[in-house]
Order: sequence, then C-alpha cells, then structure tokens
Amino acid sequence: MSEIRVDISDAIAELPVAEYQEKINAIHEQLHSGQNGYTGWVEYPTKVEGDLVWQIMTTAWKIQKQCTAFVVIGVGGSYLGAKACLELLQSPFYNEFFAKERNLPKIYFAGHHLSSVYYHELFHRLRKEEVAVCVISRSGATLEPMVVFEMFKNFMKERYGDEASERIYVVTGSKGKLREEAEQEGYTTFDVPDDIVGRFSVLTPVGLLPIAVAGIDLESVLQGARQAQAATANPDLNTNDCYRYALTRYLLKVQQDKRMEVFEVYDGKLRYFTEWMKQLFGESECQNGQGIFPVSMQMSTDLHSLGQFLQEGRQDFFETAVIIEDVTYDIMLPEGITDHAKTLHQMNRLVRESVKEAHLENGTPNIVITLPEISAYSFGKMVYFFEKACAVSCMLSDLDPFVQPGVERYKEKLQELLKNDTMQTAEIE
Amino acid sequence: MSEIRVDISDAIAELPVAEYQEKINAIHEQLHSGQNGYTGWVEYPTKVEGDLVWQIMTTAWKIQKQCTAFVVIGVGGSYLGAKACLELLQSPFYNEFFAKERNLPKIYFAGHHLSSVYYHELFHRLRKEEVAVCVISRSGATLEPMVVFEMFKNFMKERYGDEASERIYVVTGSKGKLREEAEQEGYTTFDVPDDIVGRFSVLTPVGLLPIAVAGIDLESVLQGARQAQAATANPDLNTNDCYRYALTRYLLKVQQDKRMEVFEVYDGKLRYFTEWMKQLFGESECQNGQGIFPVSMQMSTDLHSLGQFLQEGRQDFFETAVIIEDVTYDIMLPEGITDHAKTLHQMNRLVRESVKEAHLENGTPNIVITLPEISAYSFGKMVYFFEKACAVSCMLSDLDPFVQPGVERYKEKLQELLKNDTMQTAEIE
Repeated sequence: MSEIRVDISDAIAELPVAEYQEKINAIHEQLHSGQNGYTGWVEYPTKVEGDLVWQIMTTAWKIQKQCTAFVVIGVGGSYLGAKACLELLQSPFYNEFFAKERNLPKIYFAGHHLSSVYYHELFHRLRKEEVAVCVISRSGATLEPMVVFEMFKNFMKERYGDEASERIYVVTGSKGKLREEAEQEGYTTFDVPDDIVGRFSVLTPVGLLPIAVAGIDLESVLQGARQAQAATANPDLNTNDCYRYALTRYLLKVQQDKRMEVFEVYDGKLRYFTEWMKQLFGESECQNGQGIFPVSMQMSTDLHSLGQFLQEGRQDFFETAVIIEDVTYDIMLPEGITDHAKTLHQMNRLVRESVKEAHLENGTPNIVITLPEISAYSFGKMVYFFEKACAVSCMLSDLDPFVQPGVERYKEKLQELLKNDTMQTAEIE
Repeated sequence: MSEIRVDISDAIAELPVAEYQEKINAIHEQLHSGQNGYTGWVEYPTKVEGDLVWQIMTTAWKIQKQCTAFVVIGVGGSYLGAKACLELLQSPFYNEFFAKERNLPKIYFAGHHLSSVYYHELFHRLRKEEVAVCVISRSGATLEPMVVFEMFKNFMKERYGDEASERIYVVTGSKGKLREEAEQEGYTTFDVPDDIVGRFSVLTPVGLLPIAVAGIDLESVLQGARQAQAATANPDLNTNDCYRYALTRYLLKVQQDKRMEVFEVYDGKLRYFTEWMKQLFGESECQNGQGIFPVSMQMSTDLHSLGQFLQEGRQDFFETAVIIEDVTYDIMLPEGITDHAKTLHQMNRLVRESVKEAHLENGTPNIVITLPEISAYSFGKMVYFFEKACAVSCMLSDLDPFVQPGVERYKEKLQELLKNDTMQTAEIE
C-alpha cells in the first residue's frame, strides 16, 4: 500500500540533515520513551487492545439500530477529529440523502458553539427522529459541551423517560463530574486515556465511536495509523518524510522568519481536515509569541478570494498543499473543452499546477504532501503523520506540544464571571 | 430601525479626526462621483430600478415552481455573497428538511471547486429531483464555473431535451461568450452591471436571484442597504461609524504594524459572511506586499483551537468581533447551571465577554461591530457597510480597491497550460 509522499524541493534548497540528525534523534527518543506523560498517542495504534475496538464497534452497531439521528456533543479536540473524518469519507449529502439510503443514522454535531438559533432548529428537526446522544469531554467540565449536554438530557428525559439513559453515551477521562454522573446513571462509557490530550485523541474512543457509528471501518483507520507509525519509527532524516516535513517548516520559521503556514487543499472533502490541522498546530505551537499561524484555503474558491493575498500580500508565509492522487470517482469532461484534460480530476490538477507555478515565480516556499487516495486507511495515516510532524516541529523549537496555557486564560475569565456556580470550566478539550 | 454600532474604544485611544477628515472627504467624493468606473455599487441601492427587482422576483417564483433543486454555479464574488446570505437566513437544515416543509427548492452551489467526488454525488442526488440551473459569471469565461456549466448543460439536455433551455438561467456581463450563448439559446438572462466588480456585486442580480429563489425578501435586503447608504452619506468622522471603522483599521496597520484582522463571530450563521468579508478585504487590499490579512474565527469552536494563538502567538493582529444583539429564538437554560445566564444566548454573551477581557489583558486591539438582529434587512445593511468600509480603508492606503492583479497570475499560468484551447480563462469573478 502506498505511502504519504512529501516534496520539499520547492521549499528549501537542501535539508541540513547532518546538522539536525542528533537533535531529531533525541526528540524521537523523548516521544517514544513516554517520559513526557502526554505521549500515549505515539504507540497507541499498535498498543490499542482488540477488545476495546470490538466494544466500540458493537456499541456503534447498537446505536445504528437504536436511532435515526445521533447527536455528538463536543468541542475542540473532542469534535474536530471525528468531524474531519466524516467530512472526508461521507457524502456531502450524507444527512440529507445518503444516510437513509444506507440505513445509517444521520449525525449532528453540537456543543462546539452556543448559537441558540441552531439548537432551536436542531431540536425541531429531531422531533421526527429516534435520537441517541454522545457527549465527549476529556475533563467533563468544559462549559460549552456541558451546557449543551444539560439541554439534551432534558430533551431525552422528556422524550424517553427512564429509558433515556440507554440512549446516552459518554466518552470522558478517568476523573471528574461527568465520569461520576455516567457511573451513577449507568450510561455506556468509554475512557479518554490520561496520557493523551484532546488534539491528539482522534484515534482513541473520542474519535473512533462517532466514526464507527457513521459506518466507517475502524480497522482500516487503525491500520492506516499503524502504517504511519511504522513509517516514522526510524528517525533517519534521509528517509523519514514526516520528520523531513517537520524540520522544513521549523527551518522556514527560524531562517526565513515565515509567520504563516497556508494549508491548501483542492477537494472540499479535506476542509475539516484542515480545521483539525489548524487546531493541532495552532494550539501546540503558538506559545511565548512564537509559532507559525496556521491558515487553511480551499481551492478553487479561495483562489478567487485570498489568492490575491498569496500573490501580493506580505510574503511572510509558506504553502503546504495537501494533494489527493487518485479519486474514487471521476467524471469525463464534455468534449471540446480542452485537449489537456480528459476528466474533471485532471482539470483540477491543472489548476493546482498553474497555482504552483504562479506562486513559485513569487519565491513562495511550497511544500507538497501527496495522499494516495481518499479512504479510511488514508485518514488514519494522515492523522498520525501530522500529529507526529507537529510534535517534532514544536520540540525543535523547545516547546512542549501538549500544553495550551493561552486557551485557559478565557476560561479563567469565564470562571470569574460564573463565580460561585456549580458549573465551572476546567481543562481544555 | 436600529443601526450597526461600532465600538473602537478598545482598539485606539482617540481617533485623529481633525488630521484625517480632509482625506476622508476626498475619498468620499471620489467614491460618490463615479469617476473610478467601478463604483456603481455606491448608489446602487437607491438607484436600482423597481422593474429589475420585480423581474428578479417573478423569475424566482417561476424557478420555485419549476424545480425542487436549484443549482447555482459560480465562484468568488459570484458565489460568496449569496452563500453568505443563505447561511445567515436559512436554517442550517434547510436542504435536509426545511426546504420541503416550506415548499421551496433545495439549493446547491457548484463551480466553486472542481472536486470530482462532489459532482459525482451531486448528479446522483439530483436524479430524484426536478432541476433548474443558474450560472453566474461576470466575464463568462472563468474556468471553474464554465467547466461545471458544460457538465450541467449535458446533464440538463439528457434529462429535459429541448426544454432544458427553459430551466437554465444566466447572470453575466454585457459582453463575452456566455452572453452570446445565452442570447442564442434563449436562456433567461440578467445583467451584471459593467461598473461593479464581483466582490461588490452581492446586491445586484448576482446575489439577488439566488437569494430570492431561497424565499428571502429582496425588498428587505435592499431596504437595509439603503439604510446603510443613508447612514454613510455624510463623511463626518464624528458620526459616520463605517468610516470610523475604516480609519481605525488603517491606523492599526500603519501605526502599530498590525498584519492580520481576525473577524470573530459567535454564531455559526455568520460563518460564510466572514468568508465573503475575507474575499472583500483580501482581494481589495492585498497589493504591493501591503494589506491586512483577513482571518475568520467561529466561536466557541475556534477558541478551543486558534484561541491559543490569539493569546500567545505573535501579537501582530487585531480582532474585529461581529456580534448579534438579539436572536430570533432563544432557549431557556435548564435550572441549576448558573445564576448568571438565564438563556443560551445570554450564556453565549458571557463567553464573548470573557474572551474580550482575556484578550484585552494582552493588549490586543479589539473592535466590536454590533448588529441589531439576524434578518434580511440586517444582511443588506451589513453588506453595504463592509463594502464601503473596505473601499475607504484601501483608498486611505492609496490602493485601488477594484483591481486584483495577483489573482490574474494563476489564470495566466492556466491559460499557458490550456494554450490553443477554446476554453480560456479571463477576468476574475
């Protein structure tokens, strides 16, 4: 099976392998040794127990039979990973059309914002459905999902009475109020491992439960992650594409003072994947006034929007294009359009080529990450690849990738405003 | 009816009104004189003929009766305005649920990217619907929408034979191939005014036709725009909130070297409105290595993602929060959550307050633009407000807001790749 390919030839003249290999080796050792306390994700794909995967799958089958609408409550790392996976692998018309055709529940996300109009319409929408709810929160105390969960508990109790608890699922850490409540009420509960923070938790029950409910094959996702784990097991900068990417983006920052990384995709299916990447890199790396600001652009839309900035804005950024090699379905173009592309995907590649050439003339550093295809296997691979690239990049800058002191600041303010309330905010998702 | 309110007190100590009033007056005069050639939008809301609005509305009613699925093909300025309006005013479950309930056609956008999987699934989806298609392109020659339009023409001809032309609608400029074809085939056609470029064209047939098909009241949209036109008719910096905002963001750039403006919203319904703003500001302002890079963040999601950057990334940005004062529907919170908020919207405001306080401690300049409510009237007002603020900001920097030389560069490259083909790219949308 083919791997993720990284091309840095248009980003950096030559990678100073000899100079950095030793530091990279030390970082690799640190990540794999587990000494940091939050590196549980590094060997999770090979260590996760078959029993756990089986339990998630059987729970997902139960949910699929039990409901026609599955509400997933979470924010940040408890939301973006599953959302990215579903957007990548489901039809864009899944809830509208294909869920029913495939006899799967529609899936609705909640708890990632507090827009009252949205919830008003969602509750109205759900009146005609059989509902199950899953709340995902590592700390079990983050304000937005917890407030929304309270609303949904009321909704479920009114609707299902005492049987509501059989339709409520919880994914949370080993301690905290949500854990206590889940035990008391007898909700089916899965653990967020203590040694994995939110943005590195997609491949744990946090992401795997909603992904399985959507009918996506967990074994393929994990198999992809295992392949990426194996492909990055040797820290040699001559062969480890993930670490080559990590070092390149670090060097672009320290040598050329690049302040932004533009994640560029040419398929809308990758849009939420770039949102997940923005959280991963932004939250891990932006500390002490440092860090590369992660931006995403979805082409062609953004060519006709932010394209002007890429060409003529301040040139303090670099581009990382995430390209899909083969598509599942392609469409023949009507005759007479062009001799240079027979299919729509070929035409999309031509657009990509012309963007690249135009930006190279500007001297914009350009990294290309090529993904063989859109699949559950690819998704698992990409998640692991970017998690590791992110961790290595941060550690090259001597930053701890697993903390987020800045996010806590607004939570402290919120805590002051909500002072003396039972509902208080705690850890980040 | 209440107006858009701008609060710059946390962004700048005092606005140097005396120093800039003369320059602002000159810019105001230039915009209203029409001498630039692309300022048709400035007095369009009061000048647009009732006949044209009536024609758009009757065409929209015809389309509503004719189809159950309306496909809108366009990119950039021919896409983002209508998309922003529909996302703001429709239910998030419109296509999935409410369109049918309200007896309106589902609306699908196309031509803004070339993802073959998307079109494959869209065509599959459309098999069970009665379809009408609208192609929107000022030049009639932009590659992405034109390629997609060719595919849809084939689809419509196969499906409807000779009657296809009665289900195809065109919005285009006075010249070009699409105009010729429309006349030849007898498609119902609306004009994009020659003196309005794409990103300033939402309130012309470009945006108004799809907006009307979605059942949104055009008169309210235009009434809102007229109110904003009246509110900005006097350039006095002491009272003109739009110009005060324009000058503030200009000063933050030249005096404090701020490089990014973070458009921050607390309701998902404004997400595509910020996409439209990104095009408006990014394409107009980013020239010669200048310009403020426009970024959008949707809260609370992005608090648990890019919030870390806002607190601890490089402090070379300012924030512009777009806040909604009253919501159409609110939800009572279950008892026992907090004494500080009775409803979900009040809780959302508390989140907003705590973010603001946390960021002010950082010294981040903070502009707050308050919108009275979510409505068609508000949408028209906001569009005009930001168009004018953008134009004035650019002209303070001595930039022409109505060109986009950089975007043309990738199109030239694409033209080289497609050399000798009949399909060539031309002007930007």
